[in-house]
Amino acid sequence: MSSLRSMPAIVLEKARQLELRSIDMDEQLGDLDVRIRIHTVGICGSDVHYYQHGRIGPFVVKAPMVLGHEASGTVVDAGSMVSHLKIGDRVCMEPGIPDPNSKATRLGIYNLDPAVRFWATPPVHGCLRPEVVHPATFTFKIPENVSFAEAAMVEPLAVGMHAVNKSRIRAGDLAVVMGAGPIGMVTAIAALAAGASRVIITDVQQEKLDLAEKLGPIRAVNITKENLASVVDNFSDGWGAEVVFEASGNARSASSVFDTLCPGGTVVFIGMPNESISYDVVGASIKEARVEHVFRYAHVYPSALKLMASGKIDVKPLITDTFDFEDGIKAFEYAANMSPSSVKAQIVLVK
Amino acid sequence: MSSLRSMPAIVLEKARQLELRSIDMDEQLGDLDVRIRIHTVGICGSDVHYYQHGRIGPFVVKAPMVLGHEASGTVVDAGSMVSHLKIGDRVCMEPGIPDPNSKATRLGIYNLDPAVRFWATPPVHGCLRPEVVHPATFTFKIPENVSFAEAAMVEPLAVGMHAVNKSRIRAGDLAVVMGAGPIGMVTAIAALAAGASRVIITDVQQEKLDLAEKLGPIRAVNITKENLASVVDNFSDGWGAEVVFEASGNARSASSVFDTLCPGGTVVFIGMPNESISYDVVGASIKEARVEHVFRYAHVYPSALKLMASGKIDVKPLITDTFDFEDGIKAFEYAANMSPSSVKAQIVLVK
Amino acid sequence: MSSLRSMPAIVLEKARQLELRSIDMDEQLGDLDVRIRIHTVGICGSDVHYYQHGRIGPFVVKAPMVLGHEASGTVVDAGSMVSHLKIGDRVCMEPGIPDPNSKATRLGIYNLDPAVRFWATPPVHGCLRPEVVHPATFTFKIPENVSFAEAAMVEPLAVGMHAVNKSRIRAGDLAVVMGAGPIGMVTAIAALAAGASRVIITDVQQEKLDLAEKLGPIRAVNITKENLASVVDNFSDGWGAEVVFEASGNARSASSVFDTLCPGGTVVFIGMPNESISYDVVGASIKEARVEHVFRYAHVYPSALKLMASGKIDVKPLITDTFDFEDGIKAFEYAANMSPSSVKAQIVLVK
Amino acid sequence: MSSLRSMPAIVLEKARQLELRSIDMDEQLGDLDVRIRIHTVGICGSDVHYYQHGRIGPFVVKAPMVLGHEASGTVVDAGSMVSHLKIGDRVCMEPGIPDPNSKATRLGIYNLDPAVRFWATPPVHGCLRPEVVHPATFTFKIPENVSFAEAAMVEPLAVGMHAVNKSRIRAGDLAVVMGAGPIGMVTAIAALAAGASRVIITDVQQEKLDLAEKLGPIRAVNITKENLASVVDNFSDGWGAEVVFEASGNARSASSVFDTLCPGGTVVFIGMPNESISYDVVGASIKEARVEHVFRYAHVYPSALKLMASGKIDVKPLITDTFDFEDGIKAFEYAANMSPSSVKAQIVLVK
Repeated sequence: MSSLRSMPAIVLEKARQLELRSIDMDEQLGDLDVRIRIHTVGICGSDVHYYQHGRIGPFVVKAPMVLGHEASGTVVDAGSMVSHLKIGDRVCMEPGIPDPNSKATRLGIYNLDPAVRFWATPPVHGCLRPEVVHPATFTFKIPENVSFAEAAMVEPLAVGMHAVNKSRIRAGDLAVVMGAGPIGMVTAIAALAAGASRVIITDVQQEKLDLAEKLGPIRAVNITKENLASVVDNFSDGWGAEVVFEASGNARSASSVFDTLCPGGTVVFIGMPNESISYDVVGASIKEARVEHVFRYAHVYPSALKLMASGKIDVKPLITDTFDFEDGIKAFEYAANMSPSSVKAQIVLVK
Repeated sequence: MSSLRSMPAIVLEKARQLELRSIDMDEQLGDLDVRIRIHTVGICGSDVHYYQHGRIGPFVVKAPMVLGHEASGTVVDAGSMVSHLKIGDRVCMEPGIPDPNSKATRLGIYNLDPAVRFWATPPVHGCLRPEVVHPATFTFKIPENVSFAEAAMVEPLAVGMHAVNKSRIRAGDLAVVMGAGPIGMVTAIAALAAGASRVIITDVQQEKLDLAEKLGPIRAVNITKENLASVVDNFSDGWGAEVVFEASGNARSASSVFDTLCPGGTVVFIGMPNESISYDVVGASIKEARVEHVFRYAHVYPSALKLMASGKIDVKPLITDTFDFEDGIKAFEYAANMSPSSVKAQIVLVK
Repeated sequence: MSSLRSMPAIVLEKARQLELRSIDMDEQLGDLDVRIRIHTVGICGSDVHYYQHGRIGPFVVKAPMVLGHEASGTVVDAGSMVSHLKIGDRVCMEPGIPDPNSKATRLGIYNLDPAVRFWATPPVHGCLRPEVVHPATFTFKIPENVSFAEAAMVEPLAVGMHAVNKSRIRAGDLAVVMGAGPIGMVTAIAALAAGASRVIITDVQQEKLDLAEKLGPIRAVNITKENLASVVDNFSDGWGAEVVFEASGNARSASSVFDTLCPGGTVVFIGMPNESISYDVVGASIKEARVEHVFRYAHVYPSALKLMASGKIDVKPLITDTFDFEDGIKAFEYAANMSPSSVKAQIVLVK
Repeated sequence: MSSLRSMPAIVLEKARQLELRSIDMDEQLGDLDVRIRIHTVGICGSDVHYYQHGRIGPFVVKAPMVLGHEASGTVVDAGSMVSHLKIGDRVCMEPGIPDPNSKATRLGIYNLDPAVRFWATPPVHGCLRPEVVHPATFTFKIPENVSFAEAAMVEPLAVGMHAVNKSRIRAGDLAVVMGAGPIGMVTAIAALAAGASRVIITDVQQEKLDLAEKLGPIRAVNITKENLASVVDNFSDGWGAEVVFEASGNARSASSVFDTLCPGGTVVFIGMPNESISYDVVGASIKEARVEHVFRYAHVYPSALKLMASGKIDVKPLITDTFDFEDGIKAFEYAANMSPSSVKAQIVLVK
C-alpha cells in the first residue's frame, strides 16, 4: 500500500529556479507521529540562500526540494501511541529530527546528532506544503493566546534563545548583540527576557536599528557613525559587557568580539562567517573569556511558547510581511531583495 | 584627635525599647571610605525582630544599637584614594563589610566571611542616622532615573536577586515562590526579570496575593483555598516547576518544596525556619533536585541598579508607607503591626 | 512464533523464598537489540533487600522475579540495525531502559524517566540467568584489559561516579564520604579519580575502614572512636571539606552533613534514609551549601570503563567473594549475613 | 627610617645582559606581610624570554629587574596581623598581588585585575634573591612531605591546574594536550589528577614525548610521524576528546583544536601565540564547542599543595636540573639552550 500523497508545494528545482507545483510526498503516519495541516511558514535566510545559490556549504540541492522550516499548523491525525496531542490541536514543530538512539541525542544534545534530518536541508523536504507528518515528540501545542503567525516565529526565536541559554546570562548583565538582522533581533529580545538589563545592538543599516530600539531597553549603535566601545564603556562604567553575541556572521565583526567584553565575560558566536576568522587569543586570555558556539537549538520550543503566552516576549513587531501560498514565489523574490525595514516575511497556507 | 560625632539616631536600647536620641558615633574617614548623608532607610523584618525580641538566633543586642540597613543617600566627603565616587553623588550601600583578606572574600563569596560586619547586626550600628562612613567599594552610584526611595529598596531586592542567581533559572522556566512577604515579592520580580515565563506565588493572606498579581505575569495561590500542585501542573502540563523558591520561612512549607518540582529542577531556600525542618531525601532524589541555600547576597547591587534604570524591575509598588525621621518610632510600631496590604515602610531623613 | 525461552534463573518467588529453577523468558531480539550470554553478576544490597523483605518502598514483588542487575557477558546475537557491537564482544549493560521519547530522556536525564524499566525492580526480571536481550545502546564493550568481574562492578561504581559528577568536585578538593559500605567505597575511589586530594571516610565497622584505607589516600574515621570534625579541620586548616557525600543512608548521619562542609561547599545525598530527615536550613544557609541528589546514574558507563582500562580506578580489591551459579542461593544467604570484611559478592555463570 | 636592604640578586640589566650582583630592595614589612628567606626558584620560560628579548608583548624591561617568580622558602618574620603563618614555616608564594578592592578581585577573579603586580613582570622585581616580603594571604604553608623543590613547582603546576579547572573535566574524559613543554606536561598531570582517564599529548620533540609517557596513562603522539586524529578516534570509538588543551602556543596547532574535539566538548587555550590565529567558527559551531581562555591562575595553590601531599601529583620527574645560586647566570644560559630532555631547571639559594 503506497503512502504517497500528491500535494502542491514550493519546490526548489535547482538554484534560482523555484516553483509552486504538485509533488508526491511519502507521508506515512507512524505510531508516534502526527499529521499536521500547515498554517503559516516563515521564510528564513537559509531558504533564500538555497534559492539563490543552490547550496549552503556542504549541503547541495541535487534534486527538487520543498523549502520552508518555520511552521505552525493544526493536528489532523495522530498515531496510535501519541498521547499529548489530539486532532484539532494548534501546534508548531521543531524542524530537526535526530536519531533517538545516537550518543549525542542520549546526552541531551540532539541538535548535534550527525544523523539529524532537518526540513529543507538537502536532501530533506521542507514544509511549504499543505500537510506534513512529524514525530509527536517534536510537535508542540500552541497556547491559546499565541497566534499561528507568532508560533511560526518560534523557530527563529529558538536560535536566539538557545544562544542566550548558552551564555548563562544573569539578571542585570549588559549584553552586546552584533548584527540587527532577524537573528540579531530575536537574540536581543531573548537576552532581555533572560535578564539583560539592556542590550546594545549594532548594524550598518539605520532602518533595522530604528526598529530594534522599539523592542525594549535596546540601545542601537550604527557602527558607521558611532564607536561601540565608547557606548559600552558608558553603560558599564568602563567594565565592559558581560555577554557579547556575534549575530552578524561578518568575519570582521567576529574578530572584534573581545574588544567590548568585561573580564570573565562570555562571547557567543551565532553567525557563521564563510571563512575562518582572525582570532585574538591574547585578547581573549587577559579577560579569560568564555566562548560558546551554537548549532541551531535544543529543548527551547516549550520555553519560547511559555514566554510568548505570558507576554514576556513579543515577536509580532518582527513579522513585517505576509503572503498567501499562491504568492509564494513572489514572497521569495521579495525576501531575496528585502528592504532594510523588513524583518520577517511569512507565507499563510490556510485562508 | 577624636573622630566621634554626635548625631540623632533610632537606637534600640534593648528589646522593646526604641528611642530617637542623640548618640556618639566613631566615624573616621579612611582613605578608601566615603561619608554619606543618609536620605532614605527601609525598615526590614530583621529590624522589627530585633526591636521586638532583642535578638535573632545567636545575635543578641547587649548594648544600645542603631537600627537600619536598607539605605540610600548622598556622598558628602571622600577619602584620598577613592576614585569612582565624588561629593554629590547619589548612592546606596551594601550593609555588610567583609575582611578583604579572608579566604571567603578572596574566593568571591564575601557574604560568607565569618568576620563580616553588617549594619544593625549586633554589635554593629545601623544607618538610621543622618550620616555614615562606608567603604567606597561597597557604595554604588544611583542612576539618574532611580529615586532615593527605590535605591533604598536595592537591599531587599538583592536578597531576591541573589536567590535567583543561585537558581540559574533559564528563560521560559516556570517558578514557584512560596510566601508573598517582602522577600517573596522581590524574589518573584527578580525571577521574572531573570527569565521566568511566569511565577506562581503562594501565601495565606489574600491582600498580599492580590498585590503580587499586579507585579507581572504572576499567578497567586491562596493555599488555604486552592491546591498549589494542581496550579503548577496546569501551567506545566504536569511536568512541574523548574525552580521553587522557599521564601516563607515556614517549616511546613519548607518541607513541601519537592512536591511541585520538575525532574532535574532546583529549589532555593531563602527563608530560615526557626528550627530544623523535615526533609524528604527520597522525594528529592527521584527528581535529582538541586538545592541551593543563600546567605544575604554578593555582587548584586550593580545589577539591581541597572535593572531599575532600564525599567525592567520596578520596586515602586512595593513601597507602601513612608515616614519622616521624627516619626521613626511610630514607623517601627507601624511595621511591627503591619496590615496585610503593606509591604515596605521607609523612613526619610532628608526633607 | 513464540519468543519464549526456558532457562535456569535465580528467582525470588516471594519474600525470603529464593529458588534456582527454570523459568520462561520472553526474549525476542529486536533490530536494535543484542542477545548476551551472561558471565558475571554482582549481588547488590537491593537484591538482598528484595530477598529479605519482598519490597523496597513502593516497589513490591507480587510475582516471581529474577534477581540481579550488575552484569557482564558476551554478545551472542545482534539485531539488524546494531552497528557498534558484534557477536563475541565482551560487554556490560546498564540495567535501566528508559522511554527514548520521554521528556526526561530527551533532556539527557533518562535516569529520571518515570517509565524506565530497571532489571530486578518489580515487575521487571533481572539478569541472574544465562541469557538476556538488551538494547544495544545501553550495552557497552569492555576494554581488553578489564575482566568480566571488574565489568560487573561498573554498575555499583556508576552510582559513585554519578554522585561525583554531580558534586562537580575539583582537583585538590577535600571530600568526606559518610558510610564505608560498597557504595561509600566506590564513591571514595570515584572521588579520588575525579580530583579529590584526599577522602575522609566514616563508618562504625573497623574492618570496612581498614579496607577503605588501602584504596588510596583515604583517611578512615571510626565515628564511635574519633571526632570527624576534628579530622576534617586538621586536613583543611579549619576551612572544612569542599564536598560531603552522604552514603550511609542513616538519618542521623544525613542530618549532620553541613557540620564539616566549607563555605560554598557541596553535599551529595546518595543514601536514601527510610524516613524524612531533620534538616538544618540555617546551617546550610550560612555556608550557602549546594545540595545535590542523585538517582542511579546516567552517561557514566563509558567513563567508568575508560578509567578501569587506564588503571586509574581499580575495583578488584572490592570483589571479596565469588560463587558459582549453582551456589547462587548460598551466595544470597552469604550476602544477607555478610561479614564486615566483605564488600562485594559475585556470581559467575560461565565456567 | 629607610626600609632599603642590600642583597645579591639575579638582575636583568637589559636584554641579554644578566648579572648576579648586589641590589637595594625596598622591603618594608607591613602588618599583613611575611618576610621569607628564599630557598628554591624555578626558571620559567618567561624569565628566559625577558633575558633574551627584554620584553614580552607590551611588558618591556626599562630598568634593571630581578628575575624569578617560581619560589619556595621559609618565613623569617611576620607582620603583626598575620595569624596563619609563623616564623619557621616552610612556604611557597603566589607571585601576583592584586588590588584587594578592585572589582575583579572582589568577584574572585583577582588574576584578571589590571592592577596586579606580578614578580619579574616589568617593572616589578622578582624573587631570585635571598629575601622577599610578601602578603601573607598569598603565602602558603608547605605540607611536611613536600620538598622546597616540589613547592617551587607549584607555580607552573598552577597554570595547568587552572586550565583544568576551567575545562570542568569529568572523571573518565579523554583529554588532548597539544604541546609537551613544561606547561603541557603540568597540564597533562593536572588533567589526570582531575579525572582524565587518559591524556594524549603531542609534540615534535621525541625526547619530551618519551618523558611524558612516564608520567601516567599518557599516550604521546609525535605529530611529525603520527596522525593525532586517528589516535583520538581510536581511544574514543570515533567520538572525539572531551577536552582539548592548547599548550603549544603555536598558531597552527591553535587553529586545529576543533578537529579532535567531541560534540559538546571543551577547548582551553593556554599557550598564547604571538599573533592572531585562524579560527574555524563553523567547525566549532557544529560541535557547539565551549572555548575557555586562561590568564595565569587563581585559588589554585592550596589545591596543588594538597595533591602533592597526598601523592596524587608528583612533579619530581619534571625537575631535571638544579643549580646553585652562584651559578645562576650559568643556569639561565642553560635554560636558554635547553636540551629536549630537560623540563625544569631550578636555582637553590640555601645550602
